Formats: sequence, C-alpha cells, structure tokens
Amino acid sequence: MVPQASLTSFFNPRAIAVVGASKTEGKIGHSVVKNAIDSGFKGGIYPINPKETEIMGLKCYPSVSDIPGPVDLVAMVIPAPAILPVAEECGRKGVKNLVTITAGFKEIGKEGLERERKLLDICHRYGMRMLGPNCLGMMDTHTPLNVSFAPGMALKGGIAFVSQSGALQAAILDWSFRNGLGFSRFVSLGNKADLSEVDFIADAGDDPNTKVILVYIEGVTDGRRFLSVAREASRKKPVIILKSGTSQAGAQAASSHTGALAGSDLAYDTAFKQAGVLRARSMEELFGLAVAFTNQPTPKGDRVAIVTNSGGPGIIAADAVEANGLAMARFQKETVDALRNGLPPECALYNPVDLIGSADGARYKFALDLVADDPATENLLVLLTPPDQAEPMKTAEAVVDIHRRHPDVTVFASFMGGERVAGAMDYMFKNGVSVYDFPEPAIQSIKGMVRYGKMRQLAAVGRPERIEDVDKKLVANVFEKVRDDHRRVLLGSEAARVVRAYGIPSAPAVLARDPEEAAQAADSFGYPVVLKVASPKILHKTDVGGVKVGLKTPEEVQKAFVEILDNIHRFLPGHVIHGVEVYKMMPQGTELIIGLSRDLQFGHLLMFGLGGIYVNLLKDVSFRLVEGLTRNEIEAMISETKAYTLLRGFRGAKPADVGAIVDALARVAQLARDFPEITDIDINPLFAYEKGEQPEGITALDVKITIS
Amino acid sequence: MVPQASLTSFFNPRAIAVVGASKTEGKIGHSVVKNAIDSGFKGGIYPINPKETEIMGLKCYPSVSDIPGPVDLVAMVIPAPAILPVAEECGRKGVKNLVTITAGFKEIGKEGLERERKLLDICHRYGMRMLGPNCLGMMDTHTPLNVSFAPGMALKGGIAFVSQSGALQAAILDWSFRNGLGFSRFVSLGNKADLSEVDFIADAGDDPNTKVILVYIEGVTDGRRFLSVAREASRKKPVIILKSGTSQAGAQAASSHTGALAGSDLAYDTAFKQAGVLRARSMEELFGLAVAFTNQPTPKGDRVAIVTNSGGPGIIAADAVEANGLAMARFQKETVDALRNGLPPECALYNPVDLIGSADGARYKFALDLVADDPATENLLVLLTPPDQAEPMKTAEAVVDIHRRHPDVTVFASFMGGERVAGAMDYMFKNGVSVYDFPEPAIQSIKGMVRYGKMRQLAAVGRPERIEDVDKKLVANVFEKVRDDHRRVLLGSEAARVVRAYGIPSAPAVLARDPEEAAQAADSFGYPVVLKVASPKILHKTDVGGVKVGLKTPEEVQKAFVEILDNIHRFLPGHVIHGVEVYKMMPQGTELIIGLSRDLQFGHLLMFGLGGIYVNLLKDVSFRLVEGLTRNEIEAMISETKAYTLLRGFRGAKPADVGAIVDALARVAQLARDFPEITDIDINPLFAYEKGEQPEGITALDVKITIS
Repeated sequence: MVPQASLTSFFNPRAIAVVGASKTEGKIGHSVVKNAIDSGFKGGIYPINPKETEIMGLKCYPSVSDIPGPVDLVAMVIPAPAILPVAEECGRKGVKNLVTITAGFKEIGKEGLERERKLLDICHRYGMRMLGPNCLGMMDTHTPLNVSFAPGMALKGGIAFVSQSGALQAAILDWSFRNGLGFSRFVSLGNKADLSEVDFIADAGDDPNTKVILVYIEGVTDGRRFLSVAREASRKKPVIILKSGTSQAGAQAASSHTGALAGSDLAYDTAFKQAGVLRARSMEELFGLAVAFTNQPTPKGDRVAIVTNSGGPGIIAADAVEANGLAMARFQKETVDALRNGLPPECALYNPVDLIGSADGARYKFALDLVADDPATENLLVLLTPPDQAEPMKTAEAVVDIHRRHPDVTVFASFMGGERVAGAMDYMFKNGVSVYDFPEPAIQSIKGMVRYGKMRQLAAVGRPERIEDVDKKLVANVFEKVRDDHRRVLLGSEAARVVRAYGIPSAPAVLARDPEEAAQAADSFGYPVVLKVASPKILHKTDVGGVKVGLKTPEEVQKAFVEILDNIHRFLPGHVIHGVEVYKMMPQGTELIIGLSRDLQFGHLLMFGLGGIYVNLLKDVSFRLVEGLTRNEIEAMISETKAYTLLRGFRGAKPADVGAIVDALARVAQLARDFPEITDIDINPLFAYEKGEQPEGITALDVKITIS
Repeated sequence: MVPQASLTSFFNPRAIAVVGASKTEGKIGHSVVKNAIDSGFKGGIYPINPKETEIMGLKCYPSVSDIPGPVDLVAMVIPAPAILPVAEECGRKGVKNLVTITAGFKEIGKEGLERERKLLDICHRYGMRMLGPNCLGMMDTHTPLNVSFAPGMALKGGIAFVSQSGALQAAILDWSFRNGLGFSRFVSLGNKADLSEVDFIADAGDDPNTKVILVYIEGVTDGRRFLSVAREASRKKPVIILKSGTSQAGAQAASSHTGALAGSDLAYDTAFKQAGVLRARSMEELFGLAVAFTNQPTPKGDRVAIVTNSGGPGIIAADAVEANGLAMARFQKETVDALRNGLPPECALYNPVDLIGSADGARYKFALDLVADDPATENLLVLLTPPDQAEPMKTAEAVVDIHRRHPDVTVFASFMGGERVAGAMDYMFKNGVSVYDFPEPAIQSIKGMVRYGKMRQLAAVGRPERIEDVDKKLVANVFEKVRDDHRRVLLGSEAARVVRAYGIPSAPAVLARDPEEAAQAADSFGYPVVLKVASPKILHKTDVGGVKVGLKTPEEVQKAFVEILDNIHRFLPGHVIHGVEVYKMMPQGTELIIGLSRDLQFGHLLMFGLGGIYVNLLKDVSFRLVEGLTRNEIEAMISETKAYTLLRGFRGAKPADVGAIVDALARVAQLARDFPEITDIDINPLFAYEKGEQPEGITALDVKITIS
C-alpha cells in the first residue's frame, strides 16, 4: 500500500490566499473570498490582486510573495495562461496546497494538457499538493473553511462528499439546504491532475468528523491504489460510490470467454465489491444510504421488525423485506406474550406488528419498547398512516426515544401522508431517525447497510496467500519460446504445460511432428486419445477436418495424423501448421470454466462458472480481481454460481472436490500475479469429478493462453 | 366477457342519504355528511337520524323511507348489527347503490361473515350494488361527490385510484394535497362483498374524466373476470397495479417442475402482463407512473433524447437509459448541423446534448426546438443544474412550450437543486411536464410508459385459435380409466397417448405385461429401446433397478423385463406395479421443457424453457396463462428464454423448427382448455431437432400428467 500524505494542512490550513480576488460581485474571485470569510475560517485570509488594496475589509496583497506570514493553501482563480508563474511563486513561498479553480487545462485539448503537465511539474518540484484544475473548490465544515465558488457553505454534518462533476455538486449543495443534509467535507475533483478520489477517500477514512464517505466519479485514476485505499477506508466507515459512464464503456475486445463476459464496468463492480465499497445505482440511493449511515449503526444482521397501524403498508413493507433478500424478525415468545397482554385483541402480534387504526402514541410506545428489546430486532421500521386517532408527534417521540436507547438497532420510519405527518417526520429526521415517504425505500436503505456490514466482515478475513510449489522458470521458458516464435497465443500443449507447472491437473497433451511421434505419445498416455491440428490461427478445427476423436490403437493414431494433414492441405492450401497435438481422452465430469482477463485499470480479473459450449448462453459466471484475492473470496466466488449447486451434489450425484477447484483458482491467480504479461486464459472445460470416484479432483481439458 | 353494469348512478346519483348522520364533530357520521356538503354535490343530501331534525343546515329524516324523492345512493355508518333492516328498507325504497362504511363483517370472523352474506343477499334481491362493507367510502371529483370519511376531498384530476387498504388511501390523500396530485375517482374497496376492483377498472375504462387507472390490491376476487376486464380497459388507458402480499404467497405444493417454478405471485405477474397491466413494484413507482401518464402521451417508441447543461448528470441519465433497456435517440444530420451552427463550440451536439454551464434560457430554447423536431426524439428529458448563468424559469418556459407543441413526444425534466430551481420545477409540474428531483426516476417512468405502449401493441393482435385436429374422446377415455383406477397420475404410456391425441409427436411407448409383449412392442418400434418399470409411485426408478437402456434385440428386451421385475421384488418387496413400459430410444436433440400447472385464481399456466435434468437449476423458463393465449404470445414466450438462442442455431448448429414448438405449446394450451381437470403436465425433455436433418421437428420423450 502506498502511504498517504496527510491532508491536514489542506483541510485545516493556518492561512489561505486567493489569487485573483475581486471586488466585483458575480466574479468567481469575489465568490471565493466571500465564501472564505462567511465560512467563519479562523486563520488568515489574504486576497491577492495587484490592482486593489482592500477587498471586503481584508487587506489585499499584490502577490503571494508579499504576504508577511506563512500560507498553507492558495486558491487560484486567475486566467489559465497566468497560472504557471503564480504556482512557481507559491512553491518558492513554501505554500503546501493549491486549489486551482481556473479552467483551461486538459479539458480543452492539447494546449491545455501541456499546461496541466507543467503545472503538475511545479507542484512536484516544490512538494505541493493540488486540487483541480477546473474545479469548484472545496469545503470543510468542521474547520470551518470554504474555498470554493459554490453558492454558499454546506450545512455541518458527517458526510464527506467527493465529486468529479462540479455542476452536480453545486446542485446537490442547493438541494441539501432544502433537505437539511449536512456534510463534513465537500470536494470538487476537477481534472484530478494531482489529488484524486483516492487521496480524499484515504484522508476522510481518518477524519473523525466524517461518518460516511460519498463519491461521484466517472472513472478512477489509479485502479490498484484505489483498491488498497478503499479497502482500508471501508473497514473504518462506509464508502459509497456512484460511478457513471457504464453505458459508454462497452465490452472489451473479446479474445476470450472471460473478456467477452467481463467488460470494463464489471471490473469496477468487482473492484467495489472486493474493496468493501457500496455501489449506489442512482443519485437517490447514494444520498438515501448517506443519510442512513450518518445516523445509524452498522446493522448487526439482516432481520427487520415492522410496527404499523394499518395492514396494507405493513404487507408492502414485508414484501420489500423479502424482495430485498432480508429476513423478517421472529420475536421470542416473551415478546409476543407481553404484546398480547397490553394490546387490543384485534392487533397482529407477529411481525409485522399491526397496532390497528385506533393506535395512539402510547400504544406505539408500549409496542416499540417491547419490539426493540427483542434480540431478533436488528433493524426496526415504524410505519404510520394518519387516521383521526393517530398521534404522529407522540409516536415520533417514541421512535426517537427508541433510537436513543438502542444504539445497536437501526431505526427507520415512514409516516405516510402530508401536512398531518410533516412535523413528526421532521422531528424524527432532526433526531437521527431515517425517514422516508414510503416503506420501500426504507427497506432498500436497510439492504444497503446490511450489505456493507457483510462486506466488512468478509473483507476483514485473510490475506492472499503465496503458493510455493510452482515452476515459474518453466512458464518463463514457454513464454520466451512463444515470443521468439512471434506468437501471442500459446499452442494447446504449451498452455497445458503452463497450467501443469502451476499445479493444475490437466489432460496429458503433446505436440507431435510426425505420425510416429503421435503414436509414441498415445502409447505413453494410454488410449483412447484425440488428435487436433496445432495451429492457433485455425479457430474452428473441426470444420476443416482438423480433429479426430476416440483413437484406440497406434495404427489408428498414425492414420488419423496423415488424414488431418491431408484435410488441412485440402481445406487450407498453403497453411503452415505447428504439428498435430495428441490429447489423452478424459472421462466426462461436470463441465466448468476458469477464465482470466486483464483490465487496464484494475489488473487481472478471474472468472469461474459453468463451462462447456453454453458458457456464453448461460452466463453462469462470477468474477474477482486477482489483486489482494483471498481464499475466502475464492470460496465466495464459487458459491455465487449455479455451478456450485451442481458441485455440492445435484439430484443424487455425489459432491465434487470443491477444495480442488478453490486451489485451481488460487493457482491461476498466482500465475497471473507472477506473469503480468498474460492477457487471457480460458480453461474450458475443466472437468470436476465426484468425490471418492476414479478419477478424482479436477482436470483441465482445453487451455488457451494469450500473452502480450 | 361478462358485461359490466354501468356505475353511473353510483358515481353520479340524483340524491344521496347518509344513515347514521351525526351532529357531533369527530364522528364518522358527521364527517360523511360534511364531506358530501363540502364536495359541492349538486343533488340532494339527506341525513338520516331519528333523533335529529336538522344536521349542518340540512333537514334530517328519521329513516330512508321518509325521504320524499328518489335516492340513488345510501351511505351507511350505523353499527353493524343495525345494518340489515336498513339495507332491506333501502331496497324497498328503490335505492340503487349502497356504500357500507360500517365495519364488523367478514373481517371479524364467523359472525361477521354471516352478516355480510345476508347483506349481500339483500343487495341481490333488490338489484342494489354495494361498496364495502368496512371501507372509507368513495369520491368522484368530476361529479363532484364525496361519500367518505376521508380527511377532505381529493384534488380534481385524471387518476382513478382504487384501493383495498383504506388507511393507505387516506394517507395518500393527505400526501396528494402536498404534491398537487389530482384524482378523478377515489374508491376504497373494503371487504369487496359485491363491487370489486374489476367493476371499478371496467367503469373507469369508460370514464372520460379518467386518464389512468391506479389500483392497490392484496389479491383479486375473480381471476378470469379480472383478466378480460383489465385487458379491455388497458386497451383504452393505462392500468397500473401495486399488488402486495407477494411474500406470504409462497410456492404452491410442487407436484411438477412447473408448479415448483411458478408459485402464485408468478400467476399474478403473468396475468398482469397478458392483460396489458403495468405492475408497479413500489408506491413510488405507482404514483410516478400515474403522474407521467396523466400528462404525457403513450410513447411512440423507446428512444430518449437528453438535453443538459452539465456533463455528469447527462452521463448518469444515459447510463439509466441503457440500464432500463431504452435506446438513446440518434439525431439526423440536419439536427446536428443546426445545433452546431447555433451553439458555442464547447457544446456536445450528439445525444446527450450538453449546452455547458453558460447556457441561459435562450440557448435551451434553441436546442430544445431542434431536438424535439428530430424524428428520433420520442421521449425528451431536460436536465439542468443551476450555475450562475442558468435561467431555470426561462428554461422551464421553453420546456413547457415544447410539451405543448409536441403532443406526441413525452417530456420529462429534472432540474437539480433546491430553492434556485423550485419555482421552475413547480411551473413545469403545473403545466403537465413530469418533473423529478434526479434523472434516474424520470428514465424509469419512461421505461414504464414504453412498456405499456409495447404491451398495448402486442395485446391488440390476434385471438386464441381453436385447434381442430385433436382426439378429445381418446383423452377423455384415458382420464376415465385413470379415475376408475383411483389414480391421479397417468402412466408414462398413457400420458404419451394423451399428448399424441393432441397432435404432439412423442416417442412410441407401450405398457407391456410380460416379456413377450415387451419384445413384440420393441419389434414394432425398431431398436434400440428402453424399458422402465410402470409405477407412478416409484419416483427414482433408476435407483431401484427399474430402468434398462440401449436394448438392441428381442432377447435383450425379454431378459431386461425379467431383471426389472426381480429388482423391484428385491428392493420394494410387496410393491404392485402396472407392468413395464417400452420406449423407443430417440436421437438426441436440444432438450426443452413444456409444462403446465393450475393456478386457483387464474387457471392454467403454461411454461416453456430449457429442459433436461438442470431445469430447476438453470430456471430458464417463461410463463403464460392459457386463458386468452394467442399465437403471438406463444412466440413471445419462446423468445424470452435463452433456449431460444439455442433454437435459432447456436455456435454453428442449424436452427430448430420453432414453428413446431409454437404448435406444441398451442396444443398443450388447447388440451388444458378442453380438460380443466388437468392439474399438471411436464413434458421433459422435449427434443427439438435441427431443421432439414432427420429426424425433424420435435419429439416428447417423457410426459407426466396429473389430473384432479
């Protein structure tokens, strides 16, 4: 892991300067100074403008060098062409951080790109960190400090929001005032020339004022670093990311099953999962989860208790519990008995608890106390519709009381209606209860929180292991030979040797140059054998008469060899082949696939699932990034597939040796780690045999490997 | 189709009476009278209460009989025990409709159930229709009339809302005041003793004031009638239903693959789809779609154009377009050229059109005019984030103008932010543009609307055809014999005869009583053959040595027959079998399944998908109700499966005879229509062969039929 430089002087500088400060309202240079003053920042604020002596009551300096004391952070809002000398000056002055709000860099093309590169050089030379260029700026509500031209200061709260879209962020800020949403930090990334989401995720992970980290990005800057940083941060607090651009990505050029089934959004999806990051699928989900995590503990489990005063909404909520893969809490007998003793006989005592339309605040309080005390209640959702007898505010007070007294239970509420419930909803929201207009989004938030809890548990276990009994040298030699041969695709027999060198059982295979060699190989394997023409360029070998199966004697093998050569000569005149490969025929097992492809951002992506010719049709596959992959995660990736149901012993069949499959996946991962030049592997089919039968374990039947 | 009695006198009575009217505020009898007066009802309102002479300025009568003129509708809010004589009196008076608000009927158990039955008898006797009992009442905002104890009158609008939960409905009413949502009708179903969702869907379908029909139910009262009524109504206007109780339903007792894979919520899902009903998955979706349909046309197609002033939200919306299976509109060259000529060079001219942060109202107007004129624009989403240069209100005016001038384009808007965009959002909402806080729910609404458009197209084509070349008599005889035998499950050979009688090719099969009969049958079929013990009670025939495959001569057949008998004798001593069945072995084809199960509410449910032993694992199946099933729908059900990809010719294989499969499904549907006593059919596997090869078409290999 790359150690993170602290951003303390960035978020909590001793003094700041604004280069390009202006007296004219409406100008960005005016907004930034005004925001800084209005934010209540305790340190010095130095407007810089050679044409002014004073701006908004502050003494104005002609340049950064003229400032008497130290300056930790300089915001730049001058035109792009003037930026470089000012940055240079900042470096000489000992400034630690730049916030380059100015646009006119990478986003405008070649000229801007060059300017951005030079700006970054200056930063590196002086050890300055930089936000932007081309950004809205940043805020820290706890410092407090606002170095941005956003329309005002965010409300104080526990959400650190980092966004690649400044416009979106400004809109969210405006929206947050209306919804009472509070932030700890508010960072607009801009072009990410230096500081990127990774730096802010790492720093927010350690920030005591931040309870949840919210990120909007269109792509990450450094996939590997992102993985390790996000993994670390999400152990401390929830990291929730909305990543857009899924539609543009498209699938990668597909030279393998794995590549065809993957596509780059899948790499992001997998990376987020492995890093313990919650991926939000919409803006609504992003902020819904943020609010929930700000005020609620991480759920102990997935059980939900529902208390309502009408049946319909209770049923709707219970449906949502099941649809979201959560469980309805089953109360213990004592709870049900106590409810029965204190409630009218028409009430429903089992979950959902229906207090019926006549329920007043006291009845809610009575039932909520009992339900929240029940050990099965890990998450609580309180519903209310407003008939005349309902007391929304008294009920809200009871809900807030439960939230205070049960810090380990998540508490959600949906009081449905308009004016009659508005005050109660507001009161609960202000007191840390997560409130929703309808039951379903509340349940969806619980689902997200439970998912985070589970991911954090899983992520905490184990580290990738190093497998020692592998023959790295042999593989290096094979790859060297392939490269010498000006090839990128290995022959089947070469690929089989490679996986075998890494301890993965594979069907005996040999490249034969003449009929005698072929017969010899067959003799050594034992019969029956298969002959296949050896030529990576022939994709459909069967179609050109390049495959002969079920050969049972040396004579049949020799004859088949000659026939294959004849067929190739006839169908593909002039085509030069490498020879003919002899494979031992293996008994049929359950057909699986192990695949590997390389993502530009996140490195190797491992795939597992149902194999055979229907791979692309059935798409029963799961993925993990090789980076940091643990044995636990390999087990999880197997159990996510339908293939797993087969392997456990389906319809009376004996279970397969799942341990051997876990081992094979770990070995393929090791191979990828040891040889980054591998772009694709397809082991398809991999036969898995029933435990206790002969043959045992697994065997790779057909292996394709491509290197770069 | 059952002809619908008109509900004109129900929603637009000449005069109404309220039995149990009260002077005391807070009493239901007071609320109902007050609501009726406040609603502005033009007809007579007669409070009925023997103890009063006047209520709220209206003359009070001691009983319904005492009212001088005719009364079309009587609301009853007296205690349940007093209901029956009053209903009787209403009947004698010639009252046409009752609204029984009073509770204390079916919902309280046996005594109430008996009372409800008697009340219904009275209604039937006098030809009265009744809403309730145990309901909130009803409103028609266009009459106008409010006969309910809801907290006020709904705003006038185009949504007919019918709900099985009164509490939910009251909450929605309260909520609707805040959101400016208008209703045409507002009906609380209560116990549905007489009038049910079916009656109100049918009537709202013909109501000129209703633009969209919204229903919340926990179950339908009459599945078959629901199907025909909803199908009819959804041809005229959108019917959107939230059906809860999915989690309680659980899977049916599974005597077949189809039953196990179906479950009763699936029957609802299928019924809704075939009836052209949109199923909402949440309250939010229900009302989101309602609002969209009230103001927007049915989309011409699935193409979406997006206009924005910032990149991030544009990308988020484009992602949502892809994620929801919609298409991004591709503008014609003229549009792009015109945009280029009028916009700053930094703008993005292709969809999403990005007018960048400096866009004012005029720039939006310019771009929107061009985009809306492009024939590819079938749905339009306008996004705005509020930088300083933005003019939300002027932009809103441009959007409303587009909405007015392009009645065939759906127009949606998401102006993100708080106070700065609130006025603009409000203005657009009031002028019929569908507005959303974020882009994703707007796209989701478009998806729902497009789905409705497609369903309506599909539903309009064809009627179920009657297949004539079937031998109904033969099947009736087989079933009679099975019943005489005190069985419910047919033997394999019997089931094969049944499907063959309905024109579905199946492998020759015969029940043999002795080795000679078996050998004779085998001779007549040709070899090889399979022998299977004939006993519906033995589930795993192979495990008890009850199956012998690949028999090639009469001698082998005779020997196998004896061995099977020996095995059964050994493994299951005392077990009486029906004999041994001889099957001709058929060449391997693509393994499919055709299934049928019976839903209590909606009748027979047909299933199609990938067959073989992995059916339950792969779950690649689709469903349709037999009721009203057309050939088009059968084709659609096949094309929904992955099996269809195989059948079209996968990985170089020749395509199968899909027409033969369509025919087989139509024939199974016919069989189910002709024999309602069939509870389950499993044809698994059904082999489909490649076109132009021998054998051709399809063959049923193994058929299981259960009757009741």
